[in-house]
Parts: sequence; C-alpha cells; structure tokens
Amino acid sequence: MAALPECSAANLAQLIGPNATDAAAVAGFICDQFTAVGQRFSDTAFAVDSTYLLFSAYLVFSMQLGFAMLCAGSVRAKNTMNIMLTNVLDAAAGGLFYYLFGFAFAFGAPSNGFIGRHFFGLKDVPTVAFDYSYFLYQWAFAIAAAGITSGSIAERTQFVAYLIYSSFLTGFVYPVVSHWFWSGDGWASATNTGNLLFGTGVIDFAGSGVVHMVGGVAGLWGALIEGPRIGRFDHAGRAVSLRGHSASLVVLGTFMLWFGWYGFNPGSFTKILSAYDSGNYYGQWSAIGRTAVTTTLAGCTAALTTLFGKRIISGHWNVTDVCNGLLGGFAAITAGCSVVEPWAAIVCGFVAAVVLIACNMLAEKVRYDDPLEAAQLHGGCGAWGIIFTALFAKEEYVNQVYPGKPGRPYGLFMGGGGKLLGAHVIQILVIIGWVSATMGPLFFILNKMKLLRISTEDELAGMDLTRHGGFAYAYEDDESHKPGIQLRKIEPNSSSTPSAES
Amino acid sequence: MAALPECSAANLAQLIGPNATDAAAVAGFICDQFTAVGQRFSDTAFAVDSTYLLFSAYLVFSMQLGFAMLCAGSVRAKNTMNIMLTNVLDAAAGGLFYYLFGFAFAFGAPSNGFIGRHFFGLKDVPTVAFDYSYFLYQWAFAIAAAGITSGSIAERTQFVAYLIYSSFLTGFVYPVVSHWFWSGDGWASATNTGNLLFGTGVIDFAGSGVVHMVGGVAGLWGALIEGPRIGRFDHAGRAVSLRGHSASLVVLGTFMLWFGWYGFNPGSFTKILSAYDSGNYYGQWSAIGRTAVTTTLAGCTAALTTLFGKRIISGHWNVTDVCNGLLGGFAAITAGCSVVEPWAAIVCGFVAAVVLIACNMLAEKVRYDDPLEAAQLHGGCGAWGIIFTALFAKEEYVNQVYPGKPGRPYGLFMGGGGKLLGAHVIQILVIIGWVSATMGPLFFILNKMKLLRISTEDELAGMDLTRHGGFAYAYEDDESHKPGIQLRKIEPNSSSTPSAES
Amino acid sequence: MAALPECSAANLAQLIGPNATDAAAVAGFICDQFTAVGQRFSDTAFAVDSTYLLFSAYLVFSMQLGFAMLCAGSVRAKNTMNIMLTNVLDAAAGGLFYYLFGFAFAFGAPSNGFIGRHFFGLKDVPTVAFDYSYFLYQWAFAIAAAGITSGSIAERTQFVAYLIYSSFLTGFVYPVVSHWFWSGDGWASATNTGNLLFGTGVIDFAGSGVVHMVGGVAGLWGALIEGPRIGRFDHAGRAVSLRGHSASLVVLGTFMLWFGWYGFNPGSFTKILSAYDSGNYYGQWSAIGRTAVTTTLAGCTAALTTLFGKRIISGHWNVTDVCNGLLGGFAAITAGCSVVEPWAAIVCGFVAAVVLIACNMLAEKVRYDDPLEAAQLHGGCGAWGIIFTALFAKEEYVNQVYPGKPGRPYGLFMGGGGKLLGAHVIQILVIIGWVSATMGPLFFILNKMKLLRISTEDELAGMDLTRHGGFAYAYEDDESHKPGIQLRKIEPNSSSTPSAES
Repeated sequence: MAALPECSAANLAQLIGPNATDAAAVAGFICDQFTAVGQRFSDTAFAVDSTYLLFSAYLVFSMQLGFAMLCAGSVRAKNTMNIMLTNVLDAAAGGLFYYLFGFAFAFGAPSNGFIGRHFFGLKDVPTVAFDYSYFLYQWAFAIAAAGITSGSIAERTQFVAYLIYSSFLTGFVYPVVSHWFWSGDGWASATNTGNLLFGTGVIDFAGSGVVHMVGGVAGLWGALIEGPRIGRFDHAGRAVSLRGHSASLVVLGTFMLWFGWYGFNPGSFTKILSAYDSGNYYGQWSAIGRTAVTTTLAGCTAALTTLFGKRIISGHWNVTDVCNGLLGGFAAITAGCSVVEPWAAIVCGFVAAVVLIACNMLAEKVRYDDPLEAAQLHGGCGAWGIIFTALFAKEEYVNQVYPGKPGRPYGLFMGGGGKLLGAHVIQILVIIGWVSATMGPLFFILNKMKLLRISTEDELAGMDLTRHGGFAYAYEDDESHKPGIQLRKIEPNSSSTPSAES
Repeated sequence: MAALPECSAANLAQLIGPNATDAAAVAGFICDQFTAVGQRFSDTAFAVDSTYLLFSAYLVFSMQLGFAMLCAGSVRAKNTMNIMLTNVLDAAAGGLFYYLFGFAFAFGAPSNGFIGRHFFGLKDVPTVAFDYSYFLYQWAFAIAAAGITSGSIAERTQFVAYLIYSSFLTGFVYPVVSHWFWSGDGWASATNTGNLLFGTGVIDFAGSGVVHMVGGVAGLWGALIEGPRIGRFDHAGRAVSLRGHSASLVVLGTFMLWFGWYGFNPGSFTKILSAYDSGNYYGQWSAIGRTAVTTTLAGCTAALTTLFGKRIISGHWNVTDVCNGLLGGFAAITAGCSVVEPWAAIVCGFVAAVVLIACNMLAEKVRYDDPLEAAQLHGGCGAWGIIFTALFAKEEYVNQVYPGKPGRPYGLFMGGGGKLLGAHVIQILVIIGWVSATMGPLFFILNKMKLLRISTEDELAGMDLTRHGGFAYAYEDDESHKPGIQLRKIEPNSSSTPSAES
Repeated sequence: MAALPECSAANLAQLIGPNATDAAAVAGFICDQFTAVGQRFSDTAFAVDSTYLLFSAYLVFSMQLGFAMLCAGSVRAKNTMNIMLTNVLDAAAGGLFYYLFGFAFAFGAPSNGFIGRHFFGLKDVPTVAFDYSYFLYQWAFAIAAAGITSGSIAERTQFVAYLIYSSFLTGFVYPVVSHWFWSGDGWASATNTGNLLFGTGVIDFAGSGVVHMVGGVAGLWGALIEGPRIGRFDHAGRAVSLRGHSASLVVLGTFMLWFGWYGFNPGSFTKILSAYDSGNYYGQWSAIGRTAVTTTLAGCTAALTTLFGKRIISGHWNVTDVCNGLLGGFAAITAGCSVVEPWAAIVCGFVAAVVLIACNMLAEKVRYDDPLEAAQLHGGCGAWGIIFTALFAKEEYVNQVYPGKPGRPYGLFMGGGGKLLGAHVIQILVIIGWVSATMGPLFFILNKMKLLRISTEDELAGMDLTRHGGFAYAYEDDESHKPGIQLRKIEPNSSSTPSAES
C-alpha cells in the first residue's frame, strides 16, 4: 500500500511559528502520530496481502487433489494406485526439493538473468519481498507442473523413473523457467526494469508458458520416448480408445481444478491491497476480480465449444471431453487473464477448444499416446494462450498490472504493435528448447538404462497389482461366502475377489 | 467502512488563529494528511471486502462440485455421466448467459422494480457498488439454482431439453426473481428505500426463496410433466426405491455443499469491514460469524432429526436420508440465517427435517418422482425457511443487517408483528406463480415437441450408453484375458466388460 | 492490532499555548481525528482477523470430508455407509453438543484451571475475545477429535455406541483437555499468566496432544475393548490384511485433510493482523506463513520416508501407507508448527514416519486391530510431536507466539533447558490418564451392556446391509435384463444386484 505523504516536523514547526508555546513539540507530536498511522497501514497491508496470498496458495494446492482425481479417473482401474501415488509424491518430493533448491533457483534475488542463487533452504527468508507465504504459493505452482507431466506418461512408466524426472523438473527445470519470466532479474521478465526483449519482456501472468507448456512439453518427450500403451493403436494403426475407469473421478478432478484455478490466476497478483489511485473504488482488487471473471469465461466457452464440436464429430455428448476442453480454456487464459477484457476471454476459450481438438486429431494421426491429453492440453492450449495474450492485451490493464514502464507494448489487435507478439513467440521457442534440452535427454537416458518403461507383463497386468501391492478397489467381499454362514448374498456371481496381499 | 470525520482546513485555521506563522498552511497540511488517511482506509476496505467476497464466491462455486457428486451418487450408474455433464454445463452455460444477460436483468441499476437493464456483457462494470467480484458471486448463485432443477428431472430427460431450460433459467427466470428481492430497485426488496410491501420488503437473506424455491419449483414442473422414471412405482402404484449407485459420492457431495454453504450464507453480506459502531468489537464481522453458526446449527439439527425420524419410520440408520435432511436444514436457514439467534436456528432445522419427511411422504402418495428429492428439499424446506424468518427474525439483527429503516417489521414471535409474515407469504406465492408461469409452459412445450423425455429403450439402457459414449465406470479389464498371456486373473467371472466405443 | 499512541488533547493544547485563538479546540479536533483513526484501525483488525479465522474454520471443517473419505476408502465396501454416517454425525451431533456444553467447558472464561463455566448455548457471546467465529473454529476442532476415534473402532461397532461416545467426547472429554492447555485459565496453558508447570505451561500450538492424542487414546481403548475384527488375525495369530475397498477414496481423503490442515495449523493463530514490531515486514503474518511451511515440510518428509521405508519392508510402493505416513507427519508437527524452524520440521516428519511404522509393527505383534491406524497415527505421532516441540522450539519464535513471559523456557536442543520437556512429558501422561479414565470406563460399560460390538452375523454380512438399509454401491443394473426388451447388454454376468429395500 502506498505510504502516507511525508510529515516533516521541521516544516510543520516552522508553519506553526514562534508564537506557540512549543512549536517543535506540537509538530513532533503530530508527525509521530502520522508516522504511527503509516506503520499501522503497513501492518494492515502485510496482513491483508498475506491472507490473500495464503488462501490463494491453499487453492492452488487443492489442484493437486484435482490432478490426482482427474488422472485416476482417466486411467484404467489397474493403474489407479500408481498414478495417484505419483500425484502424492509430486507434492511431497516437490516440497523438499523446492525448499532445498527450487525456490532459490527461481527467485533467489539478487541474481543474474538465468538462474537465482539465494534462499537455498529458505535461508535469509523472510525479506520484505519474499515472505514464507510467497514460497508456499510458488511451491504449489511447481508441483502443478510436475503433475501435468505425470499424466502424459501414465500407465506404462516405472516408478523409479517417475521419482527421478519429478525431482529434476520441480527442483531445476521449472524453477529456471520461472526465473526467466517471473523473477525481477529474469532476462525475459515483464517486471525486469531493464529494456530487454523488444522493450517489453513476456507477459505470462500466471503461467500458460511457465507452468503449462513446461509440464506439457516435458510430458511430450516422455510419452514420445516411451511410445504408446499396448493396445492404444491396433495392427492397422487405428486408434483404440482405452477409456479411463471412472468418469466420476474425472468430473471430481475437473471441478477441483476449476476451484483451484481461482488461486492460480487471480492469486498470481500476490497482493490485493494495492490502489491504482488511492481513494478510488477501482484498484488491484478490481483487477483481481476481473481476472477471476476472464478465467471463468474462457473455461466456460471452451467447455461449450467442445461439447458441440465433439457432438458433431463423434455423435454423442461426452463429459470427459468437455472436462478436457474446459481445462484447455483455463490453460490458455492463464497467461493473459489479468490484462484482457472479459469478451476477449471468450475468444480465447473458443480457440482453445479448437486447438485442443486439432491437437488430439494430430496426436492420433502420428500415433502419439497421452492418456491425459496433457501435452495437447497444457502444451497446445498453453501455447495458444501465449499468442492470445500478445494479441488481446489491453493497454490500460497492461500498465496497471505491470507498472513503471510507460509506453510499453501491448496487444497487437488492441493497437499495441507487434513487439509483444515477438517476445511471446520467443517465449514459446525458448520453453520448447529448454525443456527439450533438459527433459528429452533425461527420458532418453532413462530409457537406455531400462528404467523408463515397465515390462509388457506388468503393463498388461497393471502396475497396481505388480508394483503397488494390489488392486485399488474391492467392491466385493468374499467373507459372505464362508461355509456355514447363510446370508443373503449381495453379489452371487463373485466367486473370487481381489484379496489383500494374498 | 465509514469515512473519517470531516477535516475542514478553514475551520481549523481559524482555531489556530492569526498568531501562527501560517495557520492556513498548518491546517491544510493536517487536513491533507487526514484526507490521505481516509483514502487509505477506503482502499483497505475495498481490498478486505473483495478478499472476503471473492473467497466466498469460490466457496459457492465449490457447491457445483457438491451438486455434481450428490447427483451422481443419487442416480443409477447407467446415468452417471449424463447427470454430471448437466452439472458441468450449468456452470459453463450459466457463465456465458449470466455474463451476457442474467446479471444485467438482476442487478442492472438504475432500473424499474421488475427487471434490470444495465451491465449487459459487464458493460460499465465496475462501479463503486458492482465490482467484478460481485458478478462472480452472483453467477455462482445463479448456477446453483439450475443445479437444483437438474436433480428433479434426472435419469429421463433429453440432453437438448436440459440445455434449453438451463439457459432459460440462468439467463432469465432466476435473474428476474433475484432482481425483485435482492436488487435495491426490486419491488419486494428489503433494501429498497421505498415503502413497498407492508413497509418491509422481503428478508430472504441468502435465498431460501430466490435460489432454492426457484430451483425446486422449476424442478417440480419438469418432473411432473415428464412423469416418474420407469419402475419407480409398481403396477399397484407402490413406490419402489431406485437407489443411487454410490453412497460415497452422496456423502462427498453433501460435505462439499456444507463447505460451500459457508460461502453462500455468511458470504451474502458481501462486505465484512463494516462497523455497526466504530471501535467496538461487535460489528458486521460478528454478524457474519453468527450467520455461519446459525447455518451450522440448522443443518446439524435437521440431520439428527432425520436420523432418528427415519430410524423410527424405516427401521435403519440411513446415511443418504441424513444427508438430505442436513441439506434441507441448510435450505431452510438460508433466508433468515443473518437475522435470527442461534437457538432459533435449531428450531428451524428441526422443522425443516419434519417438512422434508412429510413432503417425501406426500410425493410418494401422489406418485411424484424426483430422484434427488429436489422439489421437496429445496422447494419445501425453502418455503418453510421463508416462513421461519418471518416468525423468528430479531429486531436488533434486522436493523443491523438491513439498516436505514427505523421501526421496520421483524419476526412475529419476537414481537415484530405480522407484516413481515404477510410479505413472506406473498414471496412464496409470487415465486410459485412466476416460476410456474415461465418454466411450466417451457417444459410443456418441450414435451409436446418430443424434446423432453427420452425413449423407453434409452431409459432402460441408460443414457450414458446411448447418448454419452459409454458407461461411466470400468473397474474390470479385459486385457488380462487376451489369449497367450497367462496372468493371475483379477476378476475371473468377468467375461465381458464395457469396452470403449467398440 | 496495537493501538495508536495516546493523543492527549490537554497536553497538546498546552504545547500550542495561549497565543492560538482556541488551543483547546485545535487540540481537541486533532485528537478526535486520531481517535477516529484508531477506531477505524480497530474495526479493520476485527474484519481482517475474522476473515482469516472464518476461512480457516471452513478449511478445518473440510477435514471432516477428508476423514469421511479416508475412512470410507479404508474399510471394506460392506461397511462404507456405516463409517460415513459416523463422520456426518460427528459434525452434526458435535455441533449441538459443542454449542450447548462443549465450548463453555473449554473456553468459558473466567473460570478455574480445570473446566470452563460460561457461554453455555453461546450465552454472552460475542465478547471482545470470543466472537462467533472463534466458536466455529473450535467446533471444527472438536469434531476432528471425534473423527479420529471413529476410525479405530470401525467395522465392528454398534451405531448406538457410536452416538454415545461421540457425544461424550465432543461435549465433555475433549473440551476439558482443550481448557487445560489452550484456555488462558487452564492449569497447563502456555498463555496462562500464572507461573505453573515449570514456569512454562505446555506449547501444544494446534493440538498434537489436545486433538490428536485425545482422539487416538480414545480410539485405542475402544479398539482394545472390542477386540480385532473377525479375520484380522488368523488361527496362528498372524496378521491378515483386511484391505480397504477404495484407494481412490483414501487419496481423496488424504488430500482433503492436507488442504484442511492449512486451516488447522496456521489458523490456530486466530489473528493475522498483529505486528511484532509495527511498520516492519516481519509480523504474525510471517509466522503464519512459516507455520504453513513447517506443516508442509513435515508431511512431505514423512511421506517420502514412509515410501522408501515400506518399499524396503514390504517390497512395493504403497500409496495408502504413504498417505498414512503423510498424515502422521502432520499430526506430529501440529504441536510445534509455529515455534520451530523449517529444517526442524523435516526432522519431525522423518521421525514421525519411523514412529508410525514402529507403532504399526507393535500393534500387529500385540494383535491390536485399528482399521485406520488411528491410535498409532494420531496417538503415537501426536506424542512424538509433543516431545519434538520440547526439543526444537526456538527462543525467538516462542517469545513471539507466546509473548509476555520474558525468559520462558524453550527447546532443549536449542539451548532452552529441560523445563519445557518436563512440562510436555506431563502433558502426555495427563492426556493418557484423563482419556483413559473417562473413555475407558465408558467403552467398558458399553461392552458390558452389549451395546458396543455388533454380532458376528452382522459383522460378516456388513453393517450397511444389516443396519443401514443396503449396500453402498450399485454399479450394475438389472433392468436391462427385463424380458421383452433387447438391448446391448452391459454386464452380462450380473444376474442379480443389490436392489433397494426389496
């Protein structure tokens, strides 16, 4: 919050003049009071902004639950525990690695433009700019990136490979990208006061590129190197749908992600008590509300577009497709959510749905198998979102959200010229390049070392049974069939059930 | 937040007098400081209230997840995807229609008493009274109403009919009702400064009528016109329970709705930084806390009443009935939550449970089939809540929550006379009338056009299979039965499973 | 929030002196303004702190959903409805009893050191210290304790026994413990201004002892007196795993508990707008953020430790074990979360995982059966958390979080001496003693009266079928087999399904 106007006791004493009994004391008293008032406002702002940021962080964290349920529902029952365990471990291993290294690489200011170098193990935190709540918020983002990737390589990846790539992604690959685009020191950051990258830097507000493309491109390499699941394409090369085992879990996960996205996008302001013009009803709180609205509208439009689009293509109303379309709309609006008008968010969502459908068609054509459509959704729609922002970012909003650089470029279609588009194309290329250069070799080496893909036997049997101690579900119960006890049977045909560790 | 006392530099300069070196400057300086302080308080209030309202909106949104899970668990497995898709689309289509029309019809001030006429497509938003966060909050309410209705007509309604009524309800029917009772311009609003409707207007704080009765009455007409599901009543007319397929989803949904109700009821204050008497510990924050408490107690009491009531009637402890009872208690307390004492909330919940049981008995008697008991629960308990408020609203609280009309009527049993009761009876009649006059003909026409009910074949097979691409669940896996591969079988008896789009 | 410095109009008038036209009026005017400013700050603090506390309370409440899903997934399908109903009733019965008695016993100040005696039925609430939001927050804690216990005695307990112990625990046993350790009047409270218990009182910030050990020890007695479930140990006394029916629900519940723990631990500050040094960026908001971080790190470390530990022991990667390990880490850090460094939280989590594994081994050895490992997890890890706090509490943090007692003891390993450890050992003994002395006899008497354990027949058949009206799930549908209708069959082998109340 802006400080109060300066209260100079010397000046004030002079104005009161020598006829007062003790002008200096009067002035000193009054200014001390105002100083105390100013400090109370400072306290208030810290408390309000921390409340806002912490609860936003909790919402972003809840997306991990969303990913877990979405992934679980989207895979076959025999791999449910495997995929859920990876989601739990994203959060857990991510917590340790982001604490030890990741946050330091990302935000360890002061630093060079490439990588941060302070705050390892939260040393020297808190500072005025980086309180614990900021770390928590950024950790929740880091684990989201890893969660995206796990979807692409689901149902056929060794667990040890998972642990390795997840730690590497959360602890190094992702933090470096977030340093470039979000740290004030980053070479391509819109908040960098330098004049780099066409004088604008990249406006990737909540991370269509930093989070979604990073997770998506990493998943793309993993899935490409592993190859499709057994049975995903038949002998003639035609795609065979390997449907997930629970649409209820898919919908549950999707709604949780929607819920959490209100922490992801509006939360990325990190502060809410920030007036654009003190005393006016329009301030950062309004921009935050608008961001929640653009996020909502992009997702809604993408969902409806997918509903009708897939109805035309496939002949039925498909709930899981609609869920994916919705999430594609969110992934796309994430970059520009804070700097575009609500109507533009509708454009964003419409195109995102089309992009996702197209990417999925392409994937089937090239026999790319991604059980969660993660590369298509987070990679494809994420890339569209970056372009969209460069086209529709509004001058007024850009200058409010990224203040201090008068005349900075904004959206091409809004009259802001092509510089932002140039910067954003570079962002896309750089993210693809960096993630490919780091995660590609990692997956390649893991594959060479026979640590990446599970055996055919394990894949057919399912990993839950072979690696995780049993099947995820046991709806039937064999005790009612014990001899000597006559009970009304519940499931007469079940002569055998998955029994525990027997 | 109340402004600071006026700081008149002219008056202050006079008081300082001519012996000061520059009295005008001293006074001007001091008053400028206080003006700045007042502006900072204004900024603070916007930020605090926006934080409160936004997170409340997110909670209300999470009720959509609750509805989806509650509905899914309450229908048979074969219609799971169908009902969940309607819940996703409530939110998505509701987002677009409420943005384009709904919000304008509801809150487009200034307007006449019947319907709003500004803010189409959020044009001219934000204003000092209507920020984006307010729109988001109201959108979350609008989609809740549509979610209620979808429960009543579950398991037998064509998807296209669903899209039509949902858009109409969210975009027009519901917004008009919310305009009447919640907009300052509404002809029956308690915040209308005019002296309409017995000098009180209707106290329907968070919408027992505006949301729950609207959704419930709409559902009633849909379910009546469609008729019961096949098999719901046998040849002798006796009710046959068509149980939902997952009690776990029912409980999950119920808890999510409970969680979200804390956004629905306490959130309806929309502002928390509002002192009733500046400097006192008792302010709107206390009233908000009390509202959370009354909400909790009403639900808890209704749940316990249902538990024991149904134990006596049916002989067992039924979890889904308890869940419905709980929700009935919430639906009832919603109107009066902010203006009654905690002990009164217990009365409210007790009667709500009785009302729900009675409505369900009546429904069976008249062979009315409502898979979610939505008309009984939201319509019946909602109507009771409106009456309850007119009986138990406390004078002090009414004047704090609806200030500016000294001597306004309050609860009959609290000594406030019968005027509020009169107004509330009118509310019930008007809502029944308006929703019947709009949604009744709509469902009737859809039915005549053969767009409402699905075919007998589709109903027996389930809509998931016939319209949505497949069954929602696949716990068994047929790959383990492929010839040539010997694996420990998981489910020996499953010779066939729902395979995807094959 | 700290008040502004006093503005004495008399002093100020003297300083202005007799040459001003009306020095008293000038001084009075200025001081009135500052008084108004101070009141606005007071209002602001109430609103901000209430917002923080209310949303924290909602998060803690959401843990009840987490418990319900965790418990449901951890039991066999045939007892799903039973266990979920107990979770719903924890919240509902807990709401009434905590409103009528519990809150008064716990926080009814002024009182003696043993039990509170005001605020029955929320009489005389709100006061400056106890607003409605505080009641709501504490209620959410009380029902968590009952939720823990229900896990220990799952799958074999009569429903009526459940209702009795749950009411007794929520309404009396738990409130008394929370009075001792959390009320300012409590004989062992760290906020008690007296000099009791080695001059320190117990630092059990969010309740490793008050909540988790209480719930765990109560569960221990219940499970001990009932004995193990049928089939849990074979004739040779070897443990047989009775696996839960849904790993998805276990993971769902675990993530919800993690989410809710951010209300539980950081929320226990109850106020966020509290500067340690007005005008500085470091204040209670930072301590709150740090608490969220220590909570996260302890859980993450425990999860990873469990993952690898159980991999070594059992040979597979077990998701439900990892979930329990994670929760054990949370239960342990709960006592000290606000007063330890992040690195210490890692130590806490590591040991918690080891403690849980050891407790589980011991439980198998002594043939103790606890379907949720609740006594081991909440009792064992809770006790470790109390010891941990006495070892690692940092001087600076202890004095910030528990101010007003300069020179108070802190962690033994941090140079703070052994007094805190002494107090904490006493806490553990006292909790074990009190809960054993109250809940032990209760379970014993219930057992003697044949009200505790269900019959063998009921246990084998499952309680859902025998007591709750049917099976929780119905994935198959028998209507597609009705004669005369030819449809593509979905589940050919299902000749019979659980039909409702038939």
